[in-house]
Amino acid sequence: MKALRFYGSGDLRLEEMSEPTAASGEVKIEVACCGVCGTDLHEYRAGPIVIRPVDRPHPLTGGHAPVTLGHEFAGTVVEVGDDVDSVAVGSKVAIQPIFRCERCPACSAGEFNQCVSFGALGLHADGAFAHYVTVPAYMVHPIPDGVSMDAAALAEPIAVGWHAVSRSKVRSGDSVLVSGAGPIGLGALIALKAVGASPVFVAEIGDSVRTRVARELGADVVIDPSVESTAERVLDLTDGRGVDVVIEAAGVQAALDAAMRAVRSGGTVVSCASWETPAVVDLNDLLIREITLVGTLAYTDEYPMVLRHLQATGSELAQLLVTKRVDVSDAIDGAFEELVRHKDQHVKILVTPD
Amino acid sequence: MKALRFYGSGDLRLEEMSEPTAASGEVKIEVACCGVCGTDLHEYRAGPIVIRPVDRPHPLTGGHAPVTLGHEFAGTVVEVGDDVDSVAVGSKVAIQPIFRCERCPACSAGEFNQCVSFGALGLHADGAFAHYVTVPAYMVHPIPDGVSMDAAALAEPIAVGWHAVSRSKVRSGDSVLVSGAGPIGLGALIALKAVGASPVFVAEIGDSVRTRVARELGADVVIDPSVESTAERVLDLTDGRGVDVVIEAAGVQAALDAAMRAVRSGGTVVSCASWETPAVVDLNDLLIREITLVGTLAYTDEYPMVLRHLQATGSELAQLLVTKRVDVSDAIDGAFEELVRHKDQHVKILVTPD
Repeated sequence: MKALRFYGSGDLRLEEMSEPTAASGEVKIEVACCGVCGTDLHEYRAGPIVIRPVDRPHPLTGGHAPVTLGHEFAGTVVEVGDDVDSVAVGSKVAIQPIFRCERCPACSAGEFNQCVSFGALGLHADGAFAHYVTVPAYMVHPIPDGVSMDAAALAEPIAVGWHAVSRSKVRSGDSVLVSGAGPIGLGALIALKAVGASPVFVAEIGDSVRTRVARELGADVVIDPSVESTAERVLDLTDGRGVDVVIEAAGVQAALDAAMRAVRSGGTVVSCASWETPAVVDLNDLLIREITLVGTLAYTDEYPMVLRHLQATGSELAQLLVTKRVDVSDAIDGAFEELVRHKDQHVKILVTPD
Repeated sequence: MKALRFYGSGDLRLEEMSEPTAASGEVKIEVACCGVCGTDLHEYRAGPIVIRPVDRPHPLTGGHAPVTLGHEFAGTVVEVGDDVDSVAVGSKVAIQPIFRCERCPACSAGEFNQCVSFGALGLHADGAFAHYVTVPAYMVHPIPDGVSMDAAALAEPIAVGWHAVSRSKVRSGDSVLVSGAGPIGLGALIALKAVGASPVFVAEIGDSVRTRVARELGADVVIDPSVESTAERVLDLTDGRGVDVVIEAAGVQAALDAAMRAVRSGGTVVSCASWETPAVVDLNDLLIREITLVGTLAYTDEYPMVLRHLQATGSELAQLLVTKRVDVSDAIDGAFEELVRHKDQHVKILVTPD
């Protein structure tokens, strides 16, 4: 089978690999489609970042570069290993791609996103830009009736946004600013509309496809920080009070500063974007205005909720969010280079196996 | 009566003032004693900071420099104005010195520490380094039986620490690091022991009276950051996991960095110290380890709880925390200059009226 493998910065290779076999406790999946994540793109441009180099294998999986990328995917179970009775051959499944050591305090508490040996399929073990992939059985979630493979592959980025919203403790009727309308920001927007947050403002630079999708997903106002001050507009829109919650999915200083100004006294800023430099925070402002700044990573138990949500909304969401579909043989140029050159014209590119 | 008044940086004056009279809605109090707060000291060294200069009076109180300092106090009601039936002449009371506009969303929600016109007695209106002071009736809390005036004057700084602990959402059995053993850090320590946090570590530089008091108040380990790494010691003490909560009451970059390293994944850092410069926060660490950073200011509804706590512990706490007592006539040298020169030899200096 063909697999798209990461060797180093700017060095992805389409290689012929032998099919994997499900070991004990594992499931073999025939991949239907797999999204390209911002993390994949970071690795392509500047990796290895979270991917382990060959001399520092991952402590849990032993994985290191070269490795097959791809962790936002859905497919069909074609083989189950010994001791697997939670899922049967033929099941259509979405994959929650985070490994668990099952021994550390975080795993014991169900917070596997804080596992001391945090690792993910497609980064620390071979992933789903390939025809087949094997995964631990605990990663597998059955796809509910009526949810397409495309929609199920979107469960991963939507779960990241959903988890950020869960961590914000937002309540129905709360006002929210989503800063950045990439896949995570839009995933948060989907969750915010689902839990009844209102109004929801979105800040996104330029007049891109992301801006259009944010409007289609129900953003009450989309603010363009390149033409007006996000914070001032939000304060105008909230009678000077500020929003209850900001989901900060941009990861740049100007966006963080705007978030801190746009949030109300006693409100919450959730930081869910990775940063390239340390951020400066005015802690006096945090203190005097009793702001809570919350970090959030990936997800814990959000998959079942997201998959249920996709039963009602999946086809519409897939239509809005999937902006291109490309065969794995064309993925380097058609997906990775395309995103490097024209990121603002895309939300999610899906890669299909050969 | 003699009153200690702030005119500007380094310029406190003991002046003869006429006695105030309780206006409608006000209460006149004969001051028993009043603590010197870090805020008073900041104003003395570098003010006006929160005190308003003469050309920018406070929007709610109209107060500006010169102003009589002093906001951590207790005393006896000697006069009540019209429309005051909540308290009677002769009552012994502790004063919660924050004003309320009673109109803004924060005041409506009971969060008067977030009032849009935030102001405090002793900073934005004449305070209690004097024989008499008048205050709005809502500031007055009856002192329970058996609580001395000294202990009741300590309610204010203890309430600040208690509020920080409330905001941390700490639970019985949680492990905690208190960073900084000044009055606020020690107030937090008192609250932490009361709510059953365990173990509680305290970081304080040097071998000062503050270190000794922290031990007496029940700190399990006191760490000296000048001789060992706070974060490494805390990680050692928690099997590498880190503490559930850090109460950061030092307000310097090194202490914040230590707090971020010493807190466990998914834990909470409460920032309750004012900063002289913007702080640098590693938001990637906050995000990857899902840390929550919480700002906290003053208090909201903690006074009754603190006063009840003082019924059992007040005399012991006053003995530990009150390191000097000085007449208002000697307060400039005996309290303010003493704290500038020998801060580490004191926790709380009480000023008594002439």
